[in-house]
Amino acid sequence: MKLATYRDGSRDGQLLVVSRDLGLAHYATGIASRLQQVLDDWDFLAPQLHALYVQLNTGKAPHAFAFDPRQCMAPLPRAYQCVHATAYLAAPERQYQLHQQPLPASFYTEPQLHGGSSTAFLGPCDEVVVPSEAMGIDLAAGLAAITGDLPRGSTPAQTLGAIRLLMLTGDVVLRQLEQANTAAGHLHSHPATACSPVAITPDELGPAWQEGKVHLTLQLACNGRKLGLCDTGPTMHFHFGQLLAQGCKTRPWQAGAVLGSGAVSHPGASNPQGQTDDWPQGACSIADKRAIETLHQGRTRTPFLRYGDTVRADMKGKDGHSLFGALELTIAAPQEA
Amino acid sequence: MKLATYRDGSRDGQLLVVSRDLGLAHYATGIASRLQQVLDDWDFLAPQLHALYVQLNTGKAPHAFAFDPRQCMAPLPRAYQCVHATAYLAAPERQYQLHQQPLPASFYTEPQLHGGSSTAFLGPCDEVVVPSEAMGIDLAAGLAAITGDLPRGSTPAQTLGAIRLLMLTGDVVLRQLEQANTAAGHLHSHPATACSPVAITPDELGPAWQEGKVHLTLQLACNGRKLGLCDTGPTMHFHFGQLLAQGCKTRPWQAGAVLGSGAVSHPGASNPQGQTDDWPQGACSIADKRAIETLHQGRTRTPFLRYGDTVRADMKGKDGHSLFGALELTIAAPQEA
Repeated sequence: MKLATYRDGSRDGQLLVVSRDLGLAHYATGIASRLQQVLDDWDFLAPQLHALYVQLNTGKAPHAFAFDPRQCMAPLPRAYQCVHATAYLAAPERQYQLHQQPLPASFYTEPQLHGGSSTAFLGPCDEVVVPSEAMGIDLAAGLAAITGDLPRGSTPAQTLGAIRLLMLTGDVVLRQLEQANTAAGHLHSHPATACSPVAITPDELGPAWQEGKVHLTLQLACNGRKLGLCDTGPTMHFHFGQLLAQGCKTRPWQAGAVLGSGAVSHPGASNPQGQTDDWPQGACSIADKRAIETLHQGRTRTPFLRYGDTVRADMKGKDGHSLFGALELTIAAPQEA
Repeated sequence: MKLATYRDGSRDGQLLVVSRDLGLAHYATGIASRLQQVLDDWDFLAPQLHALYVQLNTGKAPHAFAFDPRQCMAPLPRAYQCVHATAYLAAPERQYQLHQQPLPASFYTEPQLHGGSSTAFLGPCDEVVVPSEAMGIDLAAGLAAITGDLPRGSTPAQTLGAIRLLMLTGDVVLRQLEQANTAAGHLHSHPATACSPVAITPDELGPAWQEGKVHLTLQLACNGRKLGLCDTGPTMHFHFGQLLAQGCKTRPWQAGAVLGSGAVSHPGASNPQGQTDDWPQGACSIADKRAIETLHQGRTRTPFLRYGDTVRADMKGKDGHSLFGALELTIAAPQEA
């Protein structure tokens, strides 16, 4: 099942069911108007939405219309919790390598989690307004899960079973405001997260959803130039079930919480001399691209994002169709008051 | 105006208007059923609630009933954002002093903010369930503001004007899980926040609300024994307007966000020899009480909280009446599954 939310002037928008090929949509009116309602009462409402989804896919939905991602808010425009994880370790390894340090051992043994902003996710085609270009504007592309209720102390197997929806995300990161990994620095340096047009139930991924990982390729481009073509499966060090279990170590989670994987990243490939000299899959953030350039050529060539720059993230299924719709974001200056 | 939320089996409960003396309550039915609705549309709905509040205070509300804090959830049972600040610096100064270090200069110049859990606030008389006593269970008492919309870059004067409600809070802190102030440590060590029975509009404080600070005494007791009698005004290093302005430095805030002051604390009093040897106002957390004991007597005497311990926090107005109702929490072990 694929769900989206259309802008209607309200804070929560209007819930839509979207066809598998993203061609058609249908308001969920009569079942639920907001996605949080569905998450609050999933067992009762999801089957009703699914029946509409089947109608839509078979051309039998009575009031279907063409789906337009530009009308979308984030599928869940505001959430009661958003936690950012560091599930892919190649990028942080490179950041530490730049400082001639190994990644702390705890990164490998225990998922690193940080509280994020959930009060207003950006829509897939929104402007990303940042106060100043000097803040080192970056966009880190990854995946996120929207969960049901998770009791305190849930196991990875239990949390996996409570994943309701998956989506693509682009975390806006202000690299100059990151301060040695402190919580205060994290709050200011991570002002917003943008979400793909649709959120999908894990079964939509078929065999590409394996043991809490999505085995597909995340495509990231900046101003039309390819930045990364990253397989999101094998290099995910902790799967979504492990990340969520870590998140509810000391507290329960409630329906509609969002957990993001953090930027996808890949280790480089070694040459016959055993030196890492190639990064065939590229990067899923500007900071990681810059780290690769420094390690490879001794200097950065890619600047952080500027006003007017565009970033596009997409993921295609085995059939070549976009699964979540594309994130197409534009970096923008604040409007003068 | 004073607002509360009664438990009704739903995630958001039922909104109540409560009389000034906390004696009577009235369902807000017909105006709004949930507090978040009111926050989303404050200018339209708050005056209607206020009219009911006036009726209630003058004995003219048609279906008033006796107010029972034990039926309360948190006034706002779940929020789209909760940020913890460190507005009182005496306690962190003491923590650093224990390690023979000065508090970093940044604490004095820039409010320290951390993302907190907002997915399920605890009610005022709830059990605080913690997985293990070995985690160093603490309760840090403070104040919190619930805001309206705050544009990115709002000034302290602007954010002060957008404070809708104030309440007492008790942050559950697991001291053994705090890790050198990292974001990941913060997430696990701050599993929950409990809220007073009612949230009140700042005008209820009269002259005790001055320049973004509450000039009254926060009373904290553990198992019936006094822990602190702390004046929350003079030692608040950053007022609520400054804390909120810092919070929206890089991003807007949406209606219904919660900002907590962090534990209230006081510097000690000096004797004629210029040595600090008295802490007449006590502490608003166990960790601070222990720090005071160590500085005074060379060792801690107060243990962290154990299962079955009770913690009570209250604040009285100049007339001697409780303003927010009391927090009366009990620490509890998880029930065996």
